[in-house]
Amino acid sequence: MDVMKKYRDAIQKTIQSRGVDRNNRLDAAIDYALVSGGKRLRPALMLAVLDAYGLPWERYVEVALSVEFVHTYSLVHDDLPAMDDDALRRGVPTTHIAYDEATAILAGDALLTDAFSLIVDASVLSDAEKVRLVQILSLHAGSKGMVYGQMLDLLYEGKPVGQDMLEAIHLHKTAKLIEAPLMMGAVIGSPSDVSAWEKVGRLLGLAFQIQDDVLEVTSDESTMGKSLSDERNEKSTYVKLLGLDQAKALIGDIFLELQETIGTMEINVHMMHSVFDSVRKRIN
Amino acid sequence: MDVMKKYRDAIQKTIQSRGVDRNNRLDAAIDYALVSGGKRLRPALMLAVLDAYGLPWERYVEVALSVEFVHTYSLVHDDLPAMDDDALRRGVPTTHIAYDEATAILAGDALLTDAFSLIVDASVLSDAEKVRLVQILSLHAGSKGMVYGQMLDLLYEGKPVGQDMLEAIHLHKTAKLIEAPLMMGAVIGSPSDVSAWEKVGRLLGLAFQIQDDVLEVTSDESTMGKSLSDERNEKSTYVKLLGLDQAKALIGDIFLELQETIGTMEINVHMMHSVFDSVRKRIN
Repeated sequence: MDVMKKYRDAIQKTIQSRGVDRNNRLDAAIDYALVSGGKRLRPALMLAVLDAYGLPWERYVEVALSVEFVHTYSLVHDDLPAMDDDALRRGVPTTHIAYDEATAILAGDALLTDAFSLIVDASVLSDAEKVRLVQILSLHAGSKGMVYGQMLDLLYEGKPVGQDMLEAIHLHKTAKLIEAPLMMGAVIGSPSDVSAWEKVGRLLGLAFQIQDDVLEVTSDESTMGKSLSDERNEKSTYVKLLGLDQAKALIGDIFLELQETIGTMEINVHMMHSVFDSVRKRIN
Repeated sequence: MDVMKKYRDAIQKTIQSRGVDRNNRLDAAIDYALVSGGKRLRPALMLAVLDAYGLPWERYVEVALSVEFVHTYSLVHDDLPAMDDDALRRGVPTTHIAYDEATAILAGDALLTDAFSLIVDASVLSDAEKVRLVQILSLHAGSKGMVYGQMLDLLYEGKPVGQDMLEAIHLHKTAKLIEAPLMMGAVIGSPSDVSAWEKVGRLLGLAFQIQDDVLEVTSDESTMGKSLSDERNEKSTYVKLLGLDQAKALIGDIFLELQETIGTMEINVHMMHSVFDSVRKRIN
Protein backbone atom coordinates (compact mmCIF):
# COMPACT_ATOMS: atom_id res chain seq x y z
CA MET A 1 0.00 0.00 0.00
CA ASP A 2 1.49 3.31 -1.12
CA VAL A 3 1.49 5.86 1.70
CA MET A 4 1.09 8.70 -0.83
CA LYS A 5 -2.04 7.27 -2.47
CA LYS A 6 -4.56 8.92 -0.14
CA TYR A 7 -3.07 12.38 -0.69
CA ARG A 8 -2.82 11.85 -4.43
CA ASP A 9 -6.43 10.63 -4.59
CA ALA A 10 -7.66 13.65 -2.63
CA ILE A 11 -5.79 16.03 -4.96
CA GLN A 12 -7.04 14.17 -8.01
CA LYS A 13 -10.62 14.38 -6.75
CA THR A 14 -10.32 18.11 -6.09
CA ILE A 15 -8.89 18.71 -9.57
CA GLN A 16 -11.66 16.67 -11.19
CA SER A 17 -14.44 18.39 -9.26
CA ARG A 18 -13.37 21.88 -10.38
CA GLY A 19 -16.15 23.41 -12.44
CA VAL A 20 -14.87 23.63 -16.01
CA ASP A 21 -16.61 25.63 -18.71
CA ARG A 22 -15.91 23.58 -21.86
CA ASN A 23 -16.93 26.55 -24.04
CA ASN A 24 -14.15 28.59 -22.45
CA ARG A 25 -10.99 27.64 -24.34
CA LEU A 26 -8.72 28.96 -21.58
CA ASP A 27 -10.59 27.02 -18.90
CA ALA A 28 -10.52 23.87 -21.03
CA ALA A 29 -6.77 24.15 -21.67
CA ILE A 30 -6.08 24.75 -17.96
CA ASP A 31 -8.14 21.68 -17.13
CA TYR A 32 -6.38 19.63 -19.82
CA ALA A 33 -2.98 20.52 -18.37
CA LEU A 34 -4.10 19.81 -14.80
CA VAL A 35 -5.95 16.56 -15.46
CA SER A 36 -3.11 15.05 -17.53
CA GLY A 37 -0.85 15.53 -14.50
CA GLY A 38 0.78 12.50 -12.99
CA LYS A 39 2.15 11.78 -9.57
CA ARG A 40 0.96 14.91 -7.72
CA LEU A 41 4.19 14.58 -5.76
CA ARG A 42 4.50 18.22 -4.70
CA PRO A 43 1.04 18.81 -3.19
CA ALA A 44 1.13 15.28 -1.74
CA LEU A 45 4.34 16.21 0.10
CA MET A 46 2.64 19.20 1.70
CA LEU A 47 -0.27 17.02 2.83
CA ALA A 48 2.16 14.36 4.13
CA VAL A 49 3.94 16.95 6.29
CA LEU A 50 0.63 18.12 7.75
CA ASP A 51 -0.30 14.48 8.38
CA ALA A 52 3.10 13.82 10.02
CA TYR A 53 2.31 16.64 12.49
CA GLY A 54 -1.06 15.03 13.24
CA LEU A 55 -3.02 17.81 11.53
CA PRO A 56 -6.27 17.22 9.57
CA TRP A 57 -4.55 17.27 6.15
CA GLU A 58 -7.88 16.75 4.32
CA ARG A 59 -8.76 20.38 5.06
CA TYR A 60 -5.70 21.68 3.19
CA VAL A 61 -6.11 20.00 -0.20
CA GLU A 62 -7.08 23.23 -2.00
CA VAL A 63 -4.07 24.99 -0.47
CA ALA A 64 -1.73 22.17 -1.55
CA LEU A 65 -3.22 22.42 -5.04
CA SER A 66 -1.53 25.83 -5.36
CA VAL A 67 1.82 24.02 -5.66
CA GLU A 68 0.43 21.68 -8.33
CA PHE A 69 -0.83 24.75 -10.24
CA VAL A 70 2.71 26.21 -10.21
CA HIS A 71 4.25 22.86 -11.17
CA THR A 72 1.75 22.40 -14.00
CA TYR A 73 2.32 25.91 -15.39
CA SER A 74 6.08 25.23 -15.40
CA LEU A 75 5.60 22.03 -17.42
CA VAL A 76 3.26 23.72 -19.91
CA HIS A 77 5.75 26.54 -20.55
CA ASP A 78 8.76 24.19 -20.45
CA ASP A 79 7.24 22.04 -23.23
CA LEU A 80 6.77 25.02 -25.61
CA PRO A 81 8.63 24.99 -28.95
CA ALA A 82 10.85 27.89 -27.83
CA MET A 83 11.81 25.93 -24.70
CA ASP A 84 12.22 22.12 -24.66
CA ASP A 85 9.89 21.58 -27.63
CA ASP A 86 8.20 18.44 -26.32
CA ALA A 87 5.12 17.07 -28.07
CA LEU A 88 4.35 14.37 -25.50
CA ARG A 89 4.25 14.33 -21.71
CA ARG A 90 3.09 11.36 -19.64
CA GLY A 91 2.05 9.69 -22.89
CA VAL A 92 -0.38 12.40 -24.00
CA PRO A 93 0.05 15.44 -26.27
CA THR A 94 1.42 18.49 -24.46
CA THR A 95 -0.90 21.48 -24.04
CA HIS A 96 0.45 23.48 -27.01
CA ILE A 97 -0.06 20.42 -29.24
CA ALA A 98 -3.57 19.66 -27.95
CA TYR A 99 -4.49 23.37 -28.21
CA ASP A 100 -1.98 25.83 -29.66
CA GLU A 101 1.05 27.78 -28.52
CA ALA A 102 -0.78 30.98 -27.60
CA THR A 103 -3.38 29.08 -25.56
CA ALA A 104 -0.63 27.12 -23.79
CA ILE A 105 1.25 30.32 -22.88
CA LEU A 106 -1.97 31.83 -21.49
CA ALA A 107 -3.02 28.64 -19.66
CA GLY A 108 0.40 28.59 -17.97
CA ASP A 109 0.11 32.27 -17.04
CA ALA A 110 -3.37 31.68 -15.60
CA LEU A 111 -2.30 28.62 -13.57
CA LEU A 112 0.61 30.55 -12.05
CA THR A 113 -1.60 33.51 -11.15
CA ASP A 114 -4.51 31.44 -9.85
CA ALA A 115 -2.10 29.48 -7.60
CA PHE A 116 -1.87 32.54 -5.38
CA SER A 117 -5.66 32.92 -5.31
CA LEU A 118 -5.92 29.37 -3.98
CA ILE A 119 -3.78 30.32 -0.97
CA VAL A 120 -5.33 33.68 -0.09
CA ASP A 121 -8.90 32.42 -0.61
CA ALA A 122 -8.46 29.42 1.75
CA SER A 123 -10.71 29.90 4.80
CA VAL A 124 -8.73 27.25 6.71
CA LEU A 125 -5.67 29.55 6.93
CA SER A 126 -5.00 32.59 9.14
CA ASP A 127 -3.82 35.79 7.45
CA ALA A 128 -0.32 35.26 8.87
CA GLU A 129 -0.22 31.74 7.40
CA LYS A 130 -1.47 32.97 4.01
CA VAL A 131 1.27 35.60 3.92
CA ARG A 132 4.00 33.07 4.79
CA LEU A 133 2.72 30.58 2.19
CA VAL A 134 2.62 33.22 -0.58
CA GLN A 135 6.13 34.30 0.46
CA ILE A 136 7.50 30.77 0.23
CA LEU A 137 5.74 29.86 -3.01
CA SER A 138 6.64 33.07 -4.87
CA LEU A 139 10.26 33.06 -3.66
CA HIS A 140 10.76 29.41 -4.62
CA ALA A 141 9.00 29.71 -7.98
CA GLY A 142 10.25 33.13 -9.16
CA SER A 143 13.42 34.80 -10.43
CA LYS A 144 15.56 33.47 -7.56
CA GLY A 145 13.96 30.02 -7.66
CA MET A 146 12.55 27.65 -10.23
CA VAL A 147 12.51 30.13 -13.14
CA TYR A 148 16.20 30.87 -12.54
CA GLY A 149 16.84 27.12 -12.74
CA GLN A 150 15.00 26.93 -16.07
CA MET A 151 17.17 29.77 -17.37
CA LEU A 152 20.39 28.02 -16.26
CA ASP A 153 19.15 24.79 -17.79
CA LEU A 154 18.65 26.46 -21.18
CA LEU A 155 21.93 28.39 -21.00
CA TYR A 156 24.01 25.27 -20.38
CA GLU A 157 22.22 23.06 -22.87
CA GLY A 158 24.80 21.30 -25.03
CA LYS A 159 27.68 22.77 -23.04
CA PRO A 160 29.98 20.83 -20.74
CA VAL A 161 29.10 21.52 -17.09
CA GLY A 162 30.76 20.34 -13.90
CA GLN A 163 28.95 18.80 -10.96
CA ASP A 164 28.68 22.19 -9.18
CA MET A 165 26.77 23.80 -12.06
CA LEU A 166 24.64 20.71 -12.61
CA GLU A 167 23.73 20.84 -8.92
CA ALA A 168 22.97 24.59 -9.12
CA ILE A 169 20.65 23.91 -12.06
CA HIS A 170 18.72 21.17 -10.31
CA LEU A 171 18.64 22.89 -6.92
CA HIS A 172 16.76 25.72 -8.62
CA LYS A 173 14.86 23.98 -11.41
CA THR A 174 13.65 21.02 -9.36
CA ALA A 175 14.48 21.27 -5.64
CA LYS A 176 12.97 24.74 -5.07
CA LEU A 177 9.49 23.45 -5.85
CA ILE A 178 10.02 20.37 -3.66
CA GLU A 179 11.21 22.55 -0.76
CA ALA A 180 8.19 24.85 -1.05
CA PRO A 181 5.37 22.36 -0.23
CA LEU A 182 7.36 20.84 2.65
CA MET A 183 8.04 24.30 4.11
CA MET A 184 4.40 25.31 3.54
CA GLY A 185 3.29 22.27 5.53
CA ALA A 186 5.73 23.21 8.30
CA VAL A 187 4.42 26.80 8.45
CA ILE A 188 1.09 25.31 9.51
CA GLY A 189 2.45 22.35 11.49
CA SER A 190 5.45 23.80 13.33
CA PRO A 191 6.98 27.09 12.13
CA SER A 192 10.28 26.46 13.96
CA ASP A 193 10.86 23.40 11.72
CA VAL A 194 10.59 25.34 8.45
CA SER A 195 14.33 25.53 7.75
CA ALA A 196 14.82 21.82 8.53
CA TRP A 197 12.12 21.02 5.95
CA GLU A 198 13.89 23.30 3.49
CA LYS A 199 16.93 21.02 3.84
CA VAL A 200 14.73 17.93 3.39
CA GLY A 201 13.32 19.45 0.21
CA ARG A 202 16.79 20.30 -1.08
CA LEU A 203 17.95 16.71 -0.60
CA LEU A 204 14.76 15.16 -1.91
CA GLY A 205 14.79 17.42 -4.98
CA LEU A 206 18.37 16.50 -5.75
CA ALA A 207 17.69 12.77 -5.31
CA PHE A 208 14.62 13.11 -7.49
CA GLN A 209 16.63 14.71 -10.30
CA ILE A 210 19.52 12.22 -10.16
CA GLN A 211 16.93 9.46 -10.23
CA ASP A 212 15.34 11.08 -13.27
CA ASP A 213 18.71 10.97 -15.01
CA VAL A 214 19.11 7.32 -14.02
CA LEU A 215 15.63 6.45 -15.29
CA GLU A 216 16.31 8.21 -18.60
CA VAL A 217 18.99 5.64 -19.40
CA THR A 218 17.38 2.61 -17.77
CA SER A 219 13.85 3.09 -19.21
CA ASP A 220 12.73 3.65 -22.76
CA GLU A 221 10.41 6.36 -24.01
CA SER A 222 7.18 4.36 -23.59
CA THR A 223 7.90 3.64 -19.93
CA MET A 224 8.64 7.25 -19.08
CA GLY A 225 5.73 8.48 -21.18
CA LYS A 226 7.62 11.53 -22.39
CA SER A 227 9.80 12.38 -25.33
CA LEU A 228 13.19 12.14 -23.61
CA SER A 229 14.02 15.58 -24.92
CA ASP A 230 16.98 15.83 -22.52
CA GLU A 231 19.00 13.42 -24.65
CA ARG A 232 17.96 15.14 -27.86
CA ASN A 233 18.76 18.58 -26.42
CA GLU A 234 22.16 17.35 -25.21
CA LYS A 235 21.59 18.21 -21.59
CA SER A 236 24.15 17.27 -18.98
CA THR A 237 23.00 14.56 -16.59
CA TYR A 238 24.39 13.01 -13.42
CA VAL A 239 24.76 9.71 -15.24
CA LYS A 240 26.91 11.28 -17.96
CA LEU A 241 28.95 13.08 -15.31
CA LEU A 242 29.37 10.35 -12.68
CA GLY A 243 28.49 7.14 -14.46
CA LEU A 244 25.42 5.02 -13.67
CA ASP A 245 26.79 3.25 -10.59
CA GLN A 246 28.10 6.40 -8.93
CA ALA A 247 24.83 8.21 -9.62
CA LYS A 248 22.89 5.38 -7.99
CA ALA A 249 25.25 5.43 -4.99
CA LEU A 250 24.72 9.19 -4.61
CA ILE A 251 20.95 8.63 -4.45
CA GLY A 252 21.53 6.12 -1.63
CA ASP A 253 23.67 8.59 0.32
CA ILE A 254 21.08 11.32 -0.02
CA PHE A 255 18.28 9.10 1.28
CA LEU A 256 20.40 8.23 4.33
CA GLU A 257 20.94 11.95 5.04
CA LEU A 258 17.21 12.55 4.60
CA GLN A 259 16.36 10.00 7.28
CA GLU A 260 18.88 11.57 9.66
CA THR A 261 17.48 15.06 9.07
CA ILE A 262 13.93 14.19 10.10
CA GLY A 263 15.09 11.91 12.93
CA THR A 264 15.03 14.67 15.53
CA MET A 265 11.67 16.22 14.62
CA GLU A 266 8.53 15.74 16.70
CA ILE A 267 6.60 14.17 13.87
CA ASN A 268 5.48 10.74 12.75
CA VAL A 269 8.97 9.80 11.58
CA HIS A 270 7.96 6.31 10.51
CA MET A 271 5.36 7.71 8.14
CA MET A 272 7.83 10.15 6.59
CA HIS A 273 10.26 7.29 6.00
CA SER A 274 7.52 5.57 4.02
CA VAL A 275 7.01 8.78 2.05
CA PHE A 276 10.74 8.91 1.19
CA ASP A 277 10.67 5.20 0.21
CA SER A 278 7.69 5.87 -2.01
CA VAL A 279 9.53 8.72 -3.75
CA ARG A 280 12.60 6.53 -4.13
CA LYS A 281 10.66 3.67 -5.68
CA ARG A 282 8.79 6.09 -7.95
CA ILE A 283 5.54 4.32 -7.14
CA ASN A 284 3.95 7.61 -6.14
CA MET B 1 2.54 70.29 -14.58
CA ASP B 2 1.42 66.70 -14.83
CA VAL B 3 -0.15 65.48 -11.60
CA MET B 4 1.09 61.92 -12.34
CA LYS B 5 4.75 62.89 -12.78
CA LYS B 6 5.75 62.53 -9.13
CA TYR B 7 4.33 59.01 -8.90
CA ARG B 8 5.88 58.00 -12.22
CA ASP B 9 9.26 59.42 -11.18
CA ALA B 10 9.17 57.54 -7.86
CA ILE B 11 8.34 54.28 -9.65
CA GLN B 12 11.02 54.90 -12.26
CA LYS B 13 13.59 55.56 -9.55
CA THR B 14 12.66 52.37 -7.69
CA ILE B 15 12.92 50.33 -10.90
CA GLN B 16 16.31 51.85 -11.74
CA SER B 17 17.71 51.30 -8.25
CA ARG B 18 16.93 47.57 -8.27
CA GLY B 19 20.17 45.63 -8.06
CA VAL B 20 20.64 43.91 -11.42
CA ASP B 21 23.22 41.21 -12.00
CA ARG B 22 24.23 41.77 -15.64
CA ASN B 23 25.83 38.32 -15.77
CA ASN B 24 22.47 36.79 -14.97
CA ARG B 25 20.61 36.62 -18.29
CA LEU B 26 17.21 36.25 -16.60
CA ASP B 27 17.84 39.27 -14.35
CA ALA B 28 19.07 41.31 -17.32
CA ALA B 29 16.01 40.43 -19.42
CA ILE B 30 13.65 41.26 -16.54
CA ASP B 31 15.40 44.59 -16.13
CA TYR B 32 15.27 45.25 -19.89
CA ALA B 33 11.52 44.66 -19.93
CA LEU B 34 10.93 46.82 -16.84
CA VAL B 35 13.20 49.72 -17.80
CA SER B 36 11.78 50.01 -21.32
CA GLY B 37 8.36 50.52 -19.75
CA GLY B 38 6.54 53.72 -20.46
CA LYS B 39 3.83 55.56 -18.64
CA ARG B 40 3.75 53.55 -15.38
CA LEU B 41 0.01 54.30 -15.41
CA ARG B 42 -1.10 51.35 -13.29
CA PRO B 43 1.21 51.74 -10.28
CA ALA B 44 0.82 55.53 -10.52
CA LEU B 45 -2.95 55.08 -10.16
CA MET B 46 -2.47 53.13 -6.93
CA LEU B 47 -0.21 55.85 -5.54
CA ALA B 48 -2.67 58.55 -6.65
CA VAL B 49 -5.49 56.85 -4.73
CA LEU B 50 -3.33 56.66 -1.59
CA ASP B 51 -2.44 60.34 -2.09
CA ALA B 52 -6.10 61.24 -2.57
CA TYR B 53 -6.83 59.69 0.86
CA GLY B 54 -4.03 61.80 2.37
CA LEU B 55 -1.78 58.79 2.98
CA PRO B 56 2.03 58.88 2.65
CA TRP B 57 2.06 57.34 -0.85
CA GLU B 58 5.90 57.42 -1.01
CA ARG B 59 6.00 54.47 1.40
CA TYR B 60 3.99 52.25 -0.98
CA VAL B 61 6.07 52.52 -4.16
CA GLU B 62 7.43 48.95 -3.90
CA VAL B 63 3.90 47.64 -3.37
CA ALA B 64 2.60 49.57 -6.38
CA LEU B 65 5.47 48.13 -8.41
CA SER B 66 3.77 44.72 -8.12
CA VAL B 67 1.13 45.94 -10.58
CA GLU B 68 3.82 47.17 -13.00
CA PHE B 69 5.48 43.74 -12.78
CA VAL B 70 2.20 42.07 -13.78
CA HIS B 71 1.59 44.61 -16.55
CA THR B 72 5.15 44.18 -17.86
CA TYR B 73 4.92 40.38 -17.87
CA SER B 74 1.68 40.61 -19.84
CA LEU B 75 3.34 42.81 -22.48
CA VAL B 76 6.38 40.52 -22.77
CA HIS B 77 4.19 37.46 -23.32
CA ASP B 78 1.72 39.34 -25.53
CA ASP B 79 4.54 40.38 -27.88
CA LEU B 80 5.74 36.78 -28.41
CA PRO B 81 5.63 35.31 -31.95
CA ALA B 82 2.87 32.87 -30.93
CA MET B 83 0.78 35.78 -29.62
CA ASP B 84 0.77 39.25 -31.26
CA ASP B 85 4.24 38.82 -32.79
CA ASP B 86 5.44 42.38 -32.18
CA ALA B 87 9.11 43.25 -32.72
CA LEU B 88 8.87 46.80 -31.37
CA ARG B 89 7.24 48.34 -28.32
CA ARG B 90 7.65 51.97 -27.28
CA GLY B 91 10.20 52.32 -30.06
CA VAL B 92 12.60 49.66 -28.79
CA PRO B 93 12.93 45.94 -29.61
CA THR B 94 10.59 43.72 -27.60
CA THR B 95 12.16 41.38 -25.04
CA HIS B 96 12.12 38.26 -27.25
CA ILE B 97 13.89 40.24 -30.00
CA ALA B 98 16.49 41.79 -27.67
CA TYR B 99 17.05 38.38 -26.01
CA ASP B 100 15.27 35.30 -27.36
CA GLU B 101 11.87 33.67 -27.06
CA ALA B 102 12.75 31.28 -24.24
CA THR B 103 14.29 34.07 -22.17
CA ALA B 104 11.25 36.28 -22.77
CA ILE B 105 8.86 33.53 -21.66
CA LEU B 106 10.92 33.00 -18.49
CA ALA B 107 11.32 36.73 -17.79
CA GLY B 108 7.54 37.10 -18.00
CA ASP B 109 7.00 34.11 -15.69
CA ALA B 110 9.49 35.56 -13.19
CA LEU B 111 7.92 39.04 -13.24
CA LEU B 112 4.47 37.58 -12.60
CA THR B 113 5.72 35.43 -9.71
CA ASP B 114 7.90 38.14 -8.16
CA ALA B 115 4.96 40.56 -8.21
CA PHE B 116 3.42 38.59 -5.36
CA SER B 117 6.72 38.64 -3.43
CA LEU B 118 6.69 42.45 -3.62
CA ILE B 119 3.34 42.54 -1.83
CA VAL B 120 3.97 39.96 0.90
CA ASP B 121 7.48 41.26 1.62
CA ALA B 122 6.33 44.87 2.15
CA SER B 123 6.89 45.86 5.79
CA VAL B 124 4.53 48.82 5.37
CA LEU B 125 1.49 46.51 5.07
CA SER B 126 -0.41 44.52 7.71
CA ASP B 127 -1.00 40.81 7.07
CA ALA B 128 -4.68 41.52 6.42
CA GLU B 129 -3.76 44.16 3.81
CA LYS B 130 -1.24 41.82 2.15
CA VAL B 131 -3.88 39.11 1.85
CA ARG B 132 -6.44 41.50 0.32
CA LEU B 133 -3.88 42.88 -2.16
CA VAL B 134 -2.79 39.41 -3.29
CA GLN B 135 -6.48 38.48 -3.63
CA ILE B 136 -7.23 41.48 -5.81
CA LEU B 137 -4.11 41.22 -7.96
CA SER B 138 -4.38 37.46 -8.60
CA LEU B 139 -8.13 37.61 -9.30
CA HIS B 140 -7.77 40.52 -11.72
CA ALA B 141 -4.72 39.11 -13.50
CA GLY B 142 -5.63 35.40 -13.68
CA SER B 143 -8.02 33.07 -15.48
CA LYS B 144 -11.08 35.22 -14.68
CA GLY B 145 -9.29 38.47 -15.37
CA MET B 146 -6.63 39.77 -17.72
CA VAL B 147 -5.52 36.38 -19.05
CA TYR B 148 -9.13 35.58 -19.97
CA GLY B 149 -9.22 38.89 -21.88
CA GLN B 150 -6.07 37.92 -23.78
CA MET B 151 -7.68 34.61 -24.72
CA LEU B 152 -10.87 36.32 -25.96
CA ASP B 153 -8.75 38.81 -27.89
CA LEU B 154 -6.92 36.00 -29.71
CA LEU B 155 -10.10 33.99 -30.32
CA TYR B 156 -11.91 36.88 -31.98
CA GLU B 157 -8.97 38.11 -34.02
CA GLY B 158 -10.09 38.64 -37.61
CA LYS B 159 -13.69 37.78 -36.76
CA PRO B 160 -16.58 40.24 -36.72
CA VAL B 161 -17.53 41.11 -33.14
CA GLY B 162 -20.34 43.27 -31.81
CA GLN B 163 -19.94 46.00 -29.22
CA ASP B 164 -20.84 43.61 -26.38
CA MET B 165 -18.00 41.20 -27.15
CA LEU B 166 -15.56 44.03 -27.83
CA GLU B 167 -16.47 45.42 -24.41
CA ALA B 168 -16.06 42.00 -22.77
CA ILE B 169 -12.59 41.70 -24.32
CA HIS B 170 -11.43 45.09 -23.12
CA LEU B 171 -13.06 44.82 -19.69
CA HIS B 172 -10.90 41.75 -19.09
CA LYS B 173 -7.78 42.45 -21.13
CA THR B 174 -7.35 46.08 -20.08
CA ALA B 175 -9.79 47.23 -17.41
CA LYS B 176 -9.07 44.42 -14.91
CA LEU B 177 -5.52 45.63 -14.44
CA ILE B 178 -6.68 49.25 -14.13
CA GLU B 179 -9.26 48.26 -11.50
CA ALA B 180 -6.68 46.34 -9.46
CA PRO B 181 -4.31 49.20 -8.48
CA LEU B 182 -7.24 51.53 -7.68
CA MET B 183 -8.84 48.87 -5.47
CA MET B 184 -5.47 48.08 -3.90
CA GLY B 185 -5.09 51.73 -2.98
CA ALA B 186 -8.59 51.74 -1.49
CA VAL B 187 -7.87 48.62 0.62
CA ILE B 188 -5.24 50.71 2.41
CA GLY B 189 -7.05 54.07 2.22
CA SER B 190 -10.69 53.16 2.89
CA PRO B 191 -11.82 49.53 2.51
CA SER B 192 -15.50 50.50 2.23
CA ASP B 193 -14.70 52.37 -1.01
CA VAL B 194 -13.16 49.35 -2.76
CA SER B 195 -16.17 48.54 -4.94
CA ALA B 196 -16.60 52.19 -5.99
CA TRP B 197 -12.97 52.19 -7.14
CA GLU B 198 -13.64 48.97 -9.02
CA LYS B 199 -16.26 50.89 -11.00
CA VAL B 200 -13.81 53.76 -11.57
CA GLY B 201 -11.26 51.27 -12.90
CA ARG B 202 -13.81 49.66 -15.16
CA LEU B 203 -14.72 53.03 -16.71
CA LEU B 204 -11.14 54.23 -16.91
CA GLY B 205 -9.99 50.98 -18.50
CA LEU B 206 -12.72 51.16 -21.10
CA ALA B 207 -11.95 54.81 -21.89
CA PHE B 208 -8.27 53.95 -22.11
CA GLN B 209 -8.94 51.20 -24.65
CA ILE B 210 -11.29 53.24 -26.81
CA GLN B 211 -8.69 56.00 -26.76
CA ASP B 212 -6.06 53.48 -27.85
CA ASP B 213 -8.25 52.60 -30.82
CA VAL B 214 -8.70 56.29 -31.64
CA LEU B 215 -4.95 56.91 -31.38
CA GLU B 216 -4.20 53.95 -33.66
CA VAL B 217 -5.96 55.74 -36.53
CA THR B 218 -4.96 59.30 -35.67
CA SER B 219 -1.24 58.64 -35.01
CA ASP B 220 1.32 56.86 -37.13
CA GLU B 221 3.66 54.13 -36.01
CA SER B 222 6.52 56.46 -34.99
CA THR B 223 4.28 58.47 -32.66
CA MET B 224 2.88 55.41 -30.92
CA GLY B 225 6.29 53.74 -30.80
CA LYS B 226 4.89 50.30 -31.45
CA SER B 227 4.20 48.16 -34.48
CA LEU B 228 0.45 48.75 -34.75
CA SER B 229 -0.03 44.99 -34.85
CA ASP B 230 -3.76 45.40 -34.17
CA GLU B 231 -4.35 46.57 -37.72
CA ARG B 232 -2.15 43.83 -39.15
CA ASN B 233 -3.85 41.18 -37.03
CA GLU B 234 -7.28 42.43 -38.09
CA LYS B 235 -8.51 43.12 -34.59
CA SER B 236 -11.87 44.75 -34.04
CA THR B 237 -11.67 48.27 -32.64
CA TYR B 238 -14.20 50.79 -31.35
CA VAL B 239 -13.36 53.06 -34.26
CA LYS B 240 -14.18 50.35 -36.81
CA LEU B 241 -17.38 49.55 -34.92
CA LEU B 242 -18.67 53.03 -34.07
CA GLY B 243 -16.72 55.36 -36.32
CA LEU B 244 -14.18 57.92 -35.11
CA ASP B 245 -16.64 60.61 -33.97
CA GLN B 246 -18.86 58.23 -32.01
CA ALA B 247 -15.83 56.61 -30.38
CA LYS B 248 -14.58 60.04 -29.28
CA ALA B 249 -18.04 60.92 -27.94
CA LEU B 250 -18.12 57.68 -25.94
CA ILE B 251 -14.81 58.63 -24.30
CA GLY B 252 -16.35 61.97 -23.28
CA ASP B 253 -19.38 60.26 -21.74
CA ILE B 254 -17.20 57.87 -19.77
CA PHE B 255 -15.10 60.68 -18.32
CA LEU B 256 -18.27 62.45 -17.18
CA GLU B 257 -19.45 59.28 -15.41
CA LEU B 258 -16.01 58.93 -13.82
CA GLN B 259 -16.24 62.38 -12.28
CA GLU B 260 -19.69 61.62 -10.92
CA THR B 261 -18.54 58.33 -9.39
CA ILE B 262 -15.79 59.87 -7.29
CA GLY B 263 -17.86 62.96 -6.44
CA THR B 264 -19.28 61.45 -3.24
CA MET B 265 -16.03 60.00 -1.84
CA GLU B 266 -14.15 61.56 1.06
CA ILE B 267 -10.99 62.09 -0.95
CA ASN B 268 -9.16 64.90 -2.68
CA VAL B 269 -11.63 64.95 -5.58
CA HIS B 270 -9.90 67.85 -7.31
CA MET B 271 -6.66 65.88 -7.48
CA MET B 272 -8.38 62.79 -8.89
CA HIS B 273 -10.00 64.96 -11.59
CA SER B 274 -6.49 66.02 -12.60
CA VAL B 275 -5.47 62.36 -12.70
CA PHE B 276 -8.39 61.57 -15.02
CA ASP B 277 -7.52 64.57 -17.22
CA SER B 278 -3.96 63.39 -17.39
CA VAL B 279 -5.05 59.93 -18.52
CA ARG B 280 -7.39 61.49 -21.06
CA LYS B 281 -4.67 63.68 -22.52
CA ARG B 282 -2.21 60.77 -22.54
CA ILE B 283 0.46 63.00 -21.09
CA ASN B 284 1.03 60.52 -18.30
